Amino acid sequence: MRSHRYKLDELAQLVQGELIGQSDLVLNGLASLEQAQPNHIAFVNGDKYLNEALNSKAGALIVTAELKDQLTTHHNFIVVANPYLAFAILTHVFETKVLKRGIESTAQISPSAIIADDAYIGHYVVIGDDCVVGANTIIQSNTRIDDGVEIGKDCFIDSQVTITGQTKIADRVRIHSNTAIGGEGFGFAPYQGKWSRIAQLGSVRIGNDVRIGSNCSIDRGALDDTILHDGVIIDNLVQIAHNVQIGENTAIAAKCGIAGSTTIGKNCILAGAVGVVGHINITDNVTITGMSMVTKNISEAGSYSSGTGQFETNHWKRTVVRLRQLADVPLTKLVKQIDHMQAQLESIESTLKSRK
Amino acid sequence: MRSHRYKLDELAQLVQGELIGQSDLVLNGLASLEQAQPNHIAFVNGDKYLNEALNSKAGALIVTAELKDQLTTHHNFIVVANPYLAFAILTHVFETKVLKRGIESTAQISPSAIIADDAYIGHYVVIGDDCVVGANTIIQSNTRIDDGVEIGKDCFIDSQVTITGQTKIADRVRIHSNTAIGGEGFGFAPYQGKWSRIAQLGSVRIGNDVRIGSNCSIDRGALDDTILHDGVIIDNLVQIAHNVQIGENTAIAAKCGIAGSTTIGKNCILAGAVGVVGHINITDNVTITGMSMVTKNISEAGSYSSGTGQFETNHWKRTVVRLRQLADVPLTKLVKQIDHMQAQLESIESTLKSRK
Amino acid sequence: MRSHRYKLDELAQLVQGELIGQSDLVLNGLASLEQAQPNHIAFVNGDKYLNEALNSKAGALIVTAELKDQLTTHHNFIVVANPYLAFAILTHVFETKVLKRGIESTAQISPSAIIADDAYIGHYVVIGDDCVVGANTIIQSNTRIDDGVEIGKDCFIDSQVTITGQTKIADRVRIHSNTAIGGEGFGFAPYQGKWSRIAQLGSVRIGNDVRIGSNCSIDRGALDDTILHDGVIIDNLVQIAHNVQIGENTAIAAKCGIAGSTTIGKNCILAGAVGVVGHINITDNVTITGMSMVTKNISEAGSYSSGTGQFETNHWKRTVVRLRQLADVPLTKLVKQIDHMQAQLESIESTLKSRK
Repeated sequence: MRSHRYKLDELAQLVQGELIGQSDLVLNGLASLEQAQPNHIAFVNGDKYLNEALNSKAGALIVTAELKDQLTTHHNFIVVANPYLAFAILTHVFETKVLKRGIESTAQISPSAIIADDAYIGHYVVIGDDCVVGANTIIQSNTRIDDGVEIGKDCFIDSQVTITGQTKIADRVRIHSNTAIGGEGFGFAPYQGKWSRIAQLGSVRIGNDVRIGSNCSIDRGALDDTILHDGVIIDNLVQIAHNVQIGENTAIAAKCGIAGSTTIGKNCILAGAVGVVGHINITDNVTITGMSMVTKNISEAGSYSSGTGQFETNHWKRTVVRLRQLADVPLTKLVKQIDHMQAQLESIESTLKSRK
Repeated sequence: MRSHRYKLDELAQLVQGELIGQSDLVLNGLASLEQAQPNHIAFVNGDKYLNEALNSKAGALIVTAELKDQLTTHHNFIVVANPYLAFAILTHVFETKVLKRGIESTAQISPSAIIADDAYIGHYVVIGDDCVVGANTIIQSNTRIDDGVEIGKDCFIDSQVTITGQTKIADRVRIHSNTAIGGEGFGFAPYQGKWSRIAQLGSVRIGNDVRIGSNCSIDRGALDDTILHDGVIIDNLVQIAHNVQIGENTAIAAKCGIAGSTTIGKNCILAGAVGVVGHINITDNVTITGMSMVTKNISEAGSYSSGTGQFETNHWKRTVVRLRQLADVPLTKLVKQIDHMQAQLESIESTLKSRK
Repeated sequence: MRSHRYKLDELAQLVQGELIGQSDLVLNGLASLEQAQPNHIAFVNGDKYLNEALNSKAGALIVTAELKDQLTTHHNFIVVANPYLAFAILTHVFETKVLKRGIESTAQISPSAIIADDAYIGHYVVIGDDCVVGANTIIQSNTRIDDGVEIGKDCFIDSQVTITGQTKIADRVRIHSNTAIGGEGFGFAPYQGKWSRIAQLGSVRIGNDVRIGSNCSIDRGALDDTILHDGVIIDNLVQIAHNVQIGENTAIAAKCGIAGSTTIGKNCILAGAVGVVGHINITDNVTITGMSMVTKNISEAGSYSSGTGQFETNHWKRTVVRLRQLADVPLTKLVKQIDHMQAQLESIESTLKSRK
């Protein structure tokens, strides 16, 4: 393993922070406050971590100016406006990167494929006819790139990935292991009591800086393409059906499923396990909370939800009994009726009083 | 890539439609109305696409007789009763098919496996002892077929698939990439505070014309087999647990999960992300809408649902507050009480009136 | 295929049961009551299977003493206190085990990796620098073990698995096909309207006797590790996000998702498709029923639920109409108001009576 050793002033410079303390302190890791050792740097993400920071063994801390003054147990700091962002930057410094370049002898590459000289193609990778792999792109072992797939530069494709359906991938795209891209969309025409398969002729287009997790399925379009625009980030086990379009910088958490031909706008956030039906539109800047079911267009930015959090099971069972009665309870009419009855009662009482 | 060029009269014949216009018009693609160019044919799926069709650049349109008369901007048509079905048929004509046959030199095939001469076995495929692969079946690269698995003819198995557990697969079955078939069912006996593994001895049987998407898990049975009957179609990321049986022509959309030993009938439709508990029966011709939870037998054909669509999040939060109160609100009793009180009120009012 | 032939007295001894009947009866399979033939042994899991047992063709039955007396159609028994546990034990006897040992010629093993002599490494497996594979561990074909991963003894890793992120795996761990372990956690810092990737520097630690199904994603931690403690069992298509910790002997059914930094205690059971939000704690001995959403800490052992089972769709639609009104219906206040009105009514009626 390659060693990562930096002096505190080097790290301060990388995050454009102010160095306080011993500039030549050598640090060889980034760690959590709890796990950090004297050779590690850690970051303090706000007031609520103050106690943890005071007790941390970290050799140096990334903090705001306000926090620094309270951390009397420490002497070495990098002071920045946004410690979380500085941490995000330093993760890249301490990351173990894939340094290999070239094509492993066991990779099977079609003679018509064009592979950049400084790409890396791992063992047992299979690359089909007319494929393109751009500069500095890494394809890990056992992955399969089918005919006509094009991949840009500076991409990272992990192992056991299948890319087919003539998918076109732009630059700086990351695809994690065991993901299937460009597979056949789920298109069938009912015919004489059976399902008649519709071969899928569209493709998948993936923009710059897109990130796709492991075990995802992103299907090719039926006729037009499935499209992930620049900056889309997708977690693990996500289903993107044929002809879905996802706008720039939208984030989709694990286990979401987007049904066919749905369009999602820019800068949206779908929390975990959200389901979205097919053939609808969701506008820009929409947040959907976890496990929600989206069944209709969303045309106004905002936050949307469905489902409920946990109930103690006996409470929940009694609630469900009531829910099953609810359809036959005309709630708003009852509320009006009760108000009306209340008025009647008061009128009767006043009549009775007057007749005393 | 193989070129697909057809004259309009050839295409009309393939879908048994009536040709209107230029019979020797050459078309080399099937496209959506919006994306079609003059060398493409498109289809018009009903009245609601009339405007799109009028503005389409498609060289020819597949339409019904009624629609044709309104499409004054176009001159080349194939007239059929069901344009969607004609489109489904033509997708097969324009599809890029795998034409390779034979066994790639890097495939590892057990000497006791029987591979049909005109099958295709891709690079780095591993096929175990006593396996059978039928005529015209295609197995893409890096897939693994474990000992004792049998696959019929005209099947398509994409890359990174694992088939184990002595699974038996009939003819014309399609299995998409990264799917796991025949894996060990989740069977454990609780014993002295720990989980004691139950080795799974059953298998998986897959009928003719079954289609399974990518990233699915279909487990082998504990003792008897897990069974997918003829014509079952399954989308991506679907879990089929041990000893599940699914009836003919049932369709299961993405992200569904069927727990162990459940039986689902024929011609059912499970929309996306439906969950079905174990050890229940669902009869034929049942539709379950998206994200529903099925916790009990369904013995009558029909449509079933649970969950709700999205609420604006603040509305939803107030709704959940009420839901948590609901268990203690005797709804139907209250409705009766209110009715009774209303009657009492009216009786009192009439008494008061009579005593005036 | 290796033959499994045992005499009835051998099987009785293996499960420490009492043999009744023909001690030298040869049995070559374990089967369900329904499918069993005279050369099979079956088990009777309680009274409710009595009729099935009476009609079974099984050559021998595993039963309790009470059940035995009622099974007048049978003569060969193994009598035990817990037939289900005896069955669990015998599945291991009849299981077809992987007997191969050694390294297939096509496996790519880094010179710095240490592989135990009696491990099995399948075709096209790729093992990176500084890896360790322990004694009697089986790694099936096409799996990839990335640099720095360590695997203990007696483990079983099926095909198409990817293990990366310097994951450390203890002994007797089973990982099924197409699972991704140690992939990058979904960590991004929002920055200037885009998502800035946080490289993940933590790892995954997996205890003894852990079982992970197929198509699972278990991500490496951001700084600290993601941890599965001893005896955890996980079904298929499960998402375990970065920095999750799962306590001993907790069982997680298929399609669950646990969001980042959540801690789950010991001996918990999560039924199918449960979702748990990030950064919460669930204590020991908690059961979560199927498809529940857990949004808050659970600090008391017990059973928790959300969602509802299926409604007939028209009933459900009317229910949802009411649910959407519910936010504006002050339920507990109304119940009090109705009680109060009832009291008022009674007081009025008594007044009227007294004035007659």
